[in-house]
Amino acid sequence: MKLATYRSESRDGRLIVVSRNLQRAVDASDIAPDLLSALEHWEVAAPLLQQRYEALNADPPGAGFSFEVDSCAAPLPRPSQWIDGSDFPNHGHWVCKALGIPALASAAPLMYQGGTDDMRGATQDLILPDESLDIDLEGEVVAVLGDVPMGVSEEDATKHIKLLMLANDCSLRALQAQEMQSGFGMIRAKPSTSFSPVAVSLDEVKPWWIQNRLHRKMQVHRNGEWIGNPDASLMKRGFGPLIAHAAYTRRLRAGTLLGSGTVSGPDDFAGSAAIAEIRGMEIEKHGEARTPYLRFGERVRIEMLDDEGQSIFGAIDQRIARQFPGGVV
Amino acid sequence: MKLATYRSESRDGRLIVVSRNLQRAVDASDIAPDLLSALEHWEVAAPLLQQRYEALNADPPGAGFSFEVDSCAAPLPRPSQWIDGSDFPNHGHWVCKALGIPALASAAPLMYQGGTDDMRGATQDLILPDESLDIDLEGEVVAVLGDVPMGVSEEDATKHIKLLMLANDCSLRALQAQEMQSGFGMIRAKPSTSFSPVAVSLDEVKPWWIQNRLHRKMQVHRNGEWIGNPDASLMKRGFGPLIAHAAYTRRLRAGTLLGSGTVSGPDDFAGSAAIAEIRGMEIEKHGEARTPYLRFGERVRIEMLDDEGQSIFGAIDQRIARQFPGGVV
Repeated sequence: MKLATYRSESRDGRLIVVSRNLQRAVDASDIAPDLLSALEHWEVAAPLLQQRYEALNADPPGAGFSFEVDSCAAPLPRPSQWIDGSDFPNHGHWVCKALGIPALASAAPLMYQGGTDDMRGATQDLILPDESLDIDLEGEVVAVLGDVPMGVSEEDATKHIKLLMLANDCSLRALQAQEMQSGFGMIRAKPSTSFSPVAVSLDEVKPWWIQNRLHRKMQVHRNGEWIGNPDASLMKRGFGPLIAHAAYTRRLRAGTLLGSGTVSGPDDFAGSAAIAEIRGMEIEKHGEARTPYLRFGERVRIEMLDDEGQSIFGAIDQRIARQFPGGVV
Repeated sequence: MKLATYRSESRDGRLIVVSRNLQRAVDASDIAPDLLSALEHWEVAAPLLQQRYEALNADPPGAGFSFEVDSCAAPLPRPSQWIDGSDFPNHGHWVCKALGIPALASAAPLMYQGGTDDMRGATQDLILPDESLDIDLEGEVVAVLGDVPMGVSEEDATKHIKLLMLANDCSLRALQAQEMQSGFGMIRAKPSTSFSPVAVSLDEVKPWWIQNRLHRKMQVHRNGEWIGNPDASLMKRGFGPLIAHAAYTRRLRAGTLLGSGTVSGPDDFAGSAAIAEIRGMEIEKHGEARTPYLRFGERVRIEMLDDEGQSIFGAIDQRIARQFPGGVV
């Protein structure tokens, strides 16, 4: 099934079910007011949501209401927590090159704890204070988890993946090197993260969900121009080991998001889902970075298509915008 | 006023108002179902909660119900986000010594993004998988924020502090050095954080709230034995600069927690609110650490008293317990 969250008076938004083709939707707030509540009561809620989804897909074309991406919040505007891996070594390699810092040498999975209070919807502006902070996109696959027990095995971990979605995990590269070297990780270098309009259950991606990885390419555009279609199947460890790593010293509660890290591979023709990678390669080749980071007014588009070219998750398609002093909180 | 959260069917718990002497309480879930909701609607909720608090304090001794600390969840079991500073340089100095890593040299405030999905109540067990992970306590002061605009000034930042509370920000020292050196910060080294039974408004600590710092000593015990009373007034920057730092590239949404870092000072007779500090000093003095980290079954107590010896926030008083395989999620 495909689920989304419409913005509402509640900061957790209102749960809706979206048709497979992303054209129509129906309210689901009678089943659970928001997706976070649905995840807490997944055993009860999931079959009801699935039933409503199947009815919507079977209904005549005018059933429900038109699905408006611009009304979407993030599927989980305020998830229980946000843990982001970095499971594509190619990404780390080129970003370190771009930042001028030593390559990261960690035998353990790399992951950071992200902010949770203000996740952005797919077409909401990404609001930032200053373009000189070197604004970058990061296209990722994100697993939405149910309750995960402490000490879960790598094998059992994937059973707790309830939904998948895409993210633009924005990074501010000018702040990143210092924060990475502080010992405390990233705070200012990681502003709000944005998410695809819909989150989908694993059966929606069944042909491509193999060994805890999504075997699809991500389509990434900057101002309408292609910049990459990296392959999400190239995760080094896959989601199971990442979840088990995070749950080693604590249980993870329903509504936890776990990210793959920026999708990236060594294929020269695949482009990139992060500008820093492109700049790292330019430094290697030309001795200098040539591709600028994002400026205010630019747009980023991230999506993933099925074999028929239909969008699986809907597209993240957002503008980089400036926070004006005294701007809306 | 003093507010607490009783555990309930909701994962955000149920809001109650607690008398100044922490003896009695009344339900407040008609004003806001939980503290997170109250913070989202603080302008409306705060005067109503204050009114109920004053009535409770004025009522005869039997009014309301007996306040049971063991029924408490964390005041915010699932805060919007958890950002923890490290604003007592003395703490960082001795912990680095204990861990055998170079002293942290950062001109910017040190802070890490913590997990939010599973905050623990004051007397709930701190459940961990293995005592060989070097289990440590960390006694902190925590500010509970309302909505904070991006780019807030250091001066304006403190206006957004709605409540204060105490925390035991448990650390697993055996995992910390590697994670601090990974560039991505701490994930496994920072399991669930625990909080004092009540959160209090600033007027409750008015005589001691000076220059964005709480001028009180923290009382810390291990298995009933005193191990420290470090002075919370020794914050290097105070809360205003910490909030402004965190809000530089993003707004902070109501229900954000911002921690002071482990309360610590250079006074030799003040003891410590973290065992790693004690071990660092032992290494300096004797060439080896002598004080063991926490073992399963041990208890930690953290509180702060007023001039009459009455507890301001109630005490964190919890047991370190082992997660058994197949234990309760």
